[in-house]
Amino acid sequence: MTKKRLSLTDYKKGILRGDRMLLGKAITLVESSLHEDQKIASKLIEIIFPFTGKSFRIGISGIPGAGKSTFIEALGKHLTSQGKKVAVLAIDPSSKISGGSILGDKTRMNELARNELAFIRPTPAHTTLGGVAGKTYEALLLCEAAGFEYIFIETVGVGQSETEVYNLTDLFLLLMITGMGDELQSMKKGIMELADFIIVNKADGDNKERAKNTVSEIQQIIHVLSSNKKEPTLISCSAKENTNIAEIALLLEDFRKRAYTSGQWAQKRASNAKQNLSRELNQLVQQDFHSNIYIQKNLKKIENEVAEGNITPQAAAIMLFKNYKAKK
Amino acid sequence: MTKKRLSLTDYKKGILRGDRMLLGKAITLVESSLHEDQKIASKLIEIIFPFTGKSFRIGISGIPGAGKSTFIEALGKHLTSQGKKVAVLAIDPSSKISGGSILGDKTRMNELARNELAFIRPTPAHTTLGGVAGKTYEALLLCEAAGFEYIFIETVGVGQSETEVYNLTDLFLLLMITGMGDELQSMKKGIMELADFIIVNKADGDNKERAKNTVSEIQQIIHVLSSNKKEPTLISCSAKENTNIAEIALLLEDFRKRAYTSGQWAQKRASNAKQNLSRELNQLVQQDFHSNIYIQKNLKKIENEVAEGNITPQAAAIMLFKNYKAKK
Repeated sequence: MTKKRLSLTDYKKGILRGDRMLLGKAITLVESSLHEDQKIASKLIEIIFPFTGKSFRIGISGIPGAGKSTFIEALGKHLTSQGKKVAVLAIDPSSKISGGSILGDKTRMNELARNELAFIRPTPAHTTLGGVAGKTYEALLLCEAAGFEYIFIETVGVGQSETEVYNLTDLFLLLMITGMGDELQSMKKGIMELADFIIVNKADGDNKERAKNTVSEIQQIIHVLSSNKKEPTLISCSAKENTNIAEIALLLEDFRKRAYTSGQWAQKRASNAKQNLSRELNQLVQQDFHSNIYIQKNLKKIENEVAEGNITPQAAAIMLFKNYKAKK
Repeated sequence: MTKKRLSLTDYKKGILRGDRMLLGKAITLVESSLHEDQKIASKLIEIIFPFTGKSFRIGISGIPGAGKSTFIEALGKHLTSQGKKVAVLAIDPSSKISGGSILGDKTRMNELARNELAFIRPTPAHTTLGGVAGKTYEALLLCEAAGFEYIFIETVGVGQSETEVYNLTDLFLLLMITGMGDELQSMKKGIMELADFIIVNKADGDNKERAKNTVSEIQQIIHVLSSNKKEPTLISCSAKENTNIAEIALLLEDFRKRAYTSGQWAQKRASNAKQNLSRELNQLVQQDFHSNIYIQKNLKKIENEVAEGNITPQAAAIMLFKNYKAKK
């Protein structure tokens, strides 16, 4: 018995009626690197595109140990209890060498995962240029077409992935904890500037008082950083004890309403779309360059010259590129 | 009184005699985005290139709080006490929005900085494609030409910057601490695979026993990860109490000797050089594309279409790129 390939119509129908199994399969299709799958995936995205755009896209970042999964689970449970459909896309920092998936190994957010208004999916963090964000964006569109109203994109780590998630979402939420020390504060500066919400998690038990202090400290940093822009919303919570979770849900709605009214919502969506276009273009340009016959013939030779230390990488690149342009 | 511009010969002479002030100025030149500076910088790199390549290039990574600065200071002091010249290039995660430098604000590694065999320099982490690594590579070449024998490249954060530093160095050292929890262990998987050395720092005071346990835990993870390759060297230390620092210096030398003999050293240098070439090429290709007249005329229009949600970013990119190719 061979596995039957789903048709484009199968996918479309399944997604539009909110079938989570079909949605999962569609995301797998989008993530596939097979040329044939890619072709169907592109068409699928085109077809469902008119049904997208209506969700609240929320990026969530924070260091390991900040309790991102617990937080998303608590907030997700609150939202589903109000009848809202919630999707979670967790960017999975797959190992670069072995290619193995990490989050796939352990099931997280167990309770939320069992809720039929919820959909949880790790997306692999490919290392190719534009890979991470490209696939995540398409997964996000598919979730929207399937009727999910809140889409959380969770990212671990610092740097690159944060910016990518920032460029995909309507609101960027940074989860923090107490006792992160001086160095972390300064390292996080760049990310704190991206944040619309800064939430100090684990404000529970013995930690309550310290969490309060952390909030004050962050308040001061924010104040310095935000001289030219709106200060982010700052609040503490305990995902474990469910404290302030309902309040955060209200604050998120408040943010959305105000962003709609002020035009900031549309502006951010437009800017995100431009970033996505730019990423897609970069990818096409690189592919085109590397498929050029002159480059395919000569790159190896130049690579060897550089590897042997006969010429600097920069000088070699300039030379090769000049010749490539001249041949065209 | 106007500031006199240094000539290429001034730079060259100063660097080759190991003048640290001139070296600092040369790195500033290399990091400058002014076209005129860039031209001189390129020439300078060409001129000093034959005098480069002889240092031990060591990448150091680890989460904030792992004690990277303290560790580099302890190791650096040990090496300089043996008459070795040590340079430290710290990649500075500058704020994306304000563009301000963080590490520049506070002086770290004070003792080492005062040592005349040492040179410490934060390099800004520009967000442009290839920016970080390109400038850091050139700073590294300049330090080598100035006679520095050990060059440490320190990176904060997870992801992108680690890979870049890996591609610049002969040895990649991951600094860890105890109590990092499950999530961190798995997140670090990709980085642990890059590591030639894994060092558990802060094995001091009450923490000694726990550090021992962490070493055993990491040993097990390493064992699973390294099925197809050489296992990294694993050791604990206390930078604060100066425990195992001399041993680590010996292990580093041992690594170098064995890598020389096995040919692994030359192989890694060659692979690094190819990565640098590829990065430089990517940059040229992007610049060329964006300076094209058709693109300059039409990109804005397509951007607006995408921003208004009339077309997906991918479809727009494909269309624009097709037309661009057809016009050529």
